[in-house]
Amino acid sequence: MAKVSVVGAGSWGTALAMLLCNNGHDTMLWSHREEQAEELRTARENKAKLPGVKIPEEIHVTSDLSEALIDKDVIVMAVPSVAVRTTAKKMSSHIRYGQVIVNVAKGIEEGSLMTLTDMIEEEIPNCQACVLSGPSHAEEVSRGLPTTCVVGAKTRALAEYLQNIFMSSVFRVYISPDILGIELGAALKNVIALAAGTADGLGYGDNTKAALITRGITEMERLGVAMGAKAETFYGLSGIGDLIVTCASVHSRNRKAGFLMGQGRTMEEAMKEVNMVVEGVYSAKAGMELAKKYHVEMPIIEQVNEVLFEGKTPADAVKELMVRDKKIENWDFEW
Amino acid sequence: MAKVSVVGAGSWGTALAMLLCNNGHDTMLWSHREEQAEELRTARENKAKLPGVKIPEEIHVTSDLSEALIDKDVIVMAVPSVAVRTTAKKMSSHIRYGQVIVNVAKGIEEGSLMTLTDMIEEEIPNCQACVLSGPSHAEEVSRGLPTTCVVGAKTRALAEYLQNIFMSSVFRVYISPDILGIELGAALKNVIALAAGTADGLGYGDNTKAALITRGITEMERLGVAMGAKAETFYGLSGIGDLIVTCASVHSRNRKAGFLMGQGRTMEEAMKEVNMVVEGVYSAKAGMELAKKYHVEMPIIEQVNEVLFEGKTPADAVKELMVRDKKIENWDFEW
Repeated sequence: MAKVSVVGAGSWGTALAMLLCNNGHDTMLWSHREEQAEELRTARENKAKLPGVKIPEEIHVTSDLSEALIDKDVIVMAVPSVAVRTTAKKMSSHIRYGQVIVNVAKGIEEGSLMTLTDMIEEEIPNCQACVLSGPSHAEEVSRGLPTTCVVGAKTRALAEYLQNIFMSSVFRVYISPDILGIELGAALKNVIALAAGTADGLGYGDNTKAALITRGITEMERLGVAMGAKAETFYGLSGIGDLIVTCASVHSRNRKAGFLMGQGRTMEEAMKEVNMVVEGVYSAKAGMELAKKYHVEMPIIEQVNEVLFEGKTPADAVKELMVRDKKIENWDFEW
Repeated sequence: MAKVSVVGAGSWGTALAMLLCNNGHDTMLWSHREEQAEELRTARENKAKLPGVKIPEEIHVTSDLSEALIDKDVIVMAVPSVAVRTTAKKMSSHIRYGQVIVNVAKGIEEGSLMTLTDMIEEEIPNCQACVLSGPSHAEEVSRGLPTTCVVGAKTRALAEYLQNIFMSSVFRVYISPDILGIELGAALKNVIALAAGTADGLGYGDNTKAALITRGITEMERLGVAMGAKAETFYGLSGIGDLIVTCASVHSRNRKAGFLMGQGRTMEEAMKEVNMVVEGVYSAKAGMELAKKYHVEMPIIEQVNEVLFEGKTPADAVKELMVRDKKIENWDFEW
């Protein structure tokens, strides 16, 4: 049994706190609003994000950051990607040397192009930042439906420690040393989901969508390898696995925004209609900047950027992808 | 412009003949039944398989095998996998030395465990057997929806020749030397589709399905590499790409049969209800035999076999997959 704390009481934070509590850990859940903490404490339900799911009495809910962070074996960071830096900054004074922090948010910082664990380690220099990612709708995890994820950590011992913390009979955890690959895959898959949604909106079929997903993962992998990540990670749970759930889900904001653009809306109109942060729009920009920085060809992400920011029509973008130079599927194969 | 012939007038054969004709090739389509050939000739529609799709007048339809095979630049073999050997046997006497034959069927022969191109080369020793595969519902190709495939051939020159033959503004063709990987991926993905369908039938969510697809591809890749194929091929169009369309499709027989078993039907009942050949059932057996032959761990395919042939309940199979030994995502990564 470990003492764990989940920072952020959105749907994913709440679902993970429930998983950790069910695994027998002494679990705390932190909300940035005392009002929400109070609601979770009394109603034992996250009505806005996970309606109908009962939060165990054993989970201690707090809005006191110091209480949430002091004397914990593991801290899970489950805030939206745009809030990671400011939250880490606030956390830093309460964090002991060597503290294990598991990031579960997905994104790349605009401007700095940093991954979220790098950002956490910059704000909290003496912590050990790890990552948990994979195809995991929070709502399904909260209902105990079989789910797999991957934990990335700098040492195998730490990865195995976290594997034991999270793993249950309905939550299977794999481990990996490739933190960078896991985080890149998690962030960039939203751009491909946007593209896949656009194809749906254009009325194209499963063939087109499968093509965008498959070739999309290939270009993510190319970028990742250029940055020092492992190719295989992109074909694993945090890459193709997460992309599959995102593209299959009717609830995905990225897919939805793409769908609306495929039907003729502008990016602004689509964002307004989805009425939530569409992560893929920011990641598309970051992905393009990374592609330029590392001199990697990313035709799908390039076309997504042209549609998002330069007024190209989605139909023209697809056309351009189809008639590009004739290619070999994998350039490093020898005949 | 080339002289091409498509052997087999099912939905895929018909769609490919239309594509080749639209690309400007002199195209012939062979049906094994003169009655069907006559219908296609007069109605210019494959009413059973591709209703509502007009077959161009330029496609010459025949049931005369000799006419279909003589003096052709490329022969496309589009018969069901179980008919490949017998058809190849019948074809062999009409085939000239070095004839290019492109197999588009998917499967592994029971007993011999041979791939289809190996089988074709065994029956027609002096031909050059190639393969075309990828995420391509015939109906969508016949309607001109954007589609990608990969051509595998023994020489780069031949692969590029075929790329030029097939490629159009709506049909993008990649090339690869890894014929074995392409064929294994195409055949084994049906087993994983069966598993994914079963998870749906059990009422599990997208997380479970994404887990089965992602880890399923990983074990296909392990087998493929042990047999001499390239890992990357399984993460490409004929592997993950084709698996995605199969699992997404409500029309897939493999997914449907799995779904019914997840809901409690036996394999026999499910096969009867689907009322068509469920390729994945045969491939499951072949996959398991290959796993044993090459000493590769294939836990999902193993569980599918136990459900299909040993009466294990699907729920128990999923439970077993979830609580296996704790694993590293990729064994060859170093910490």
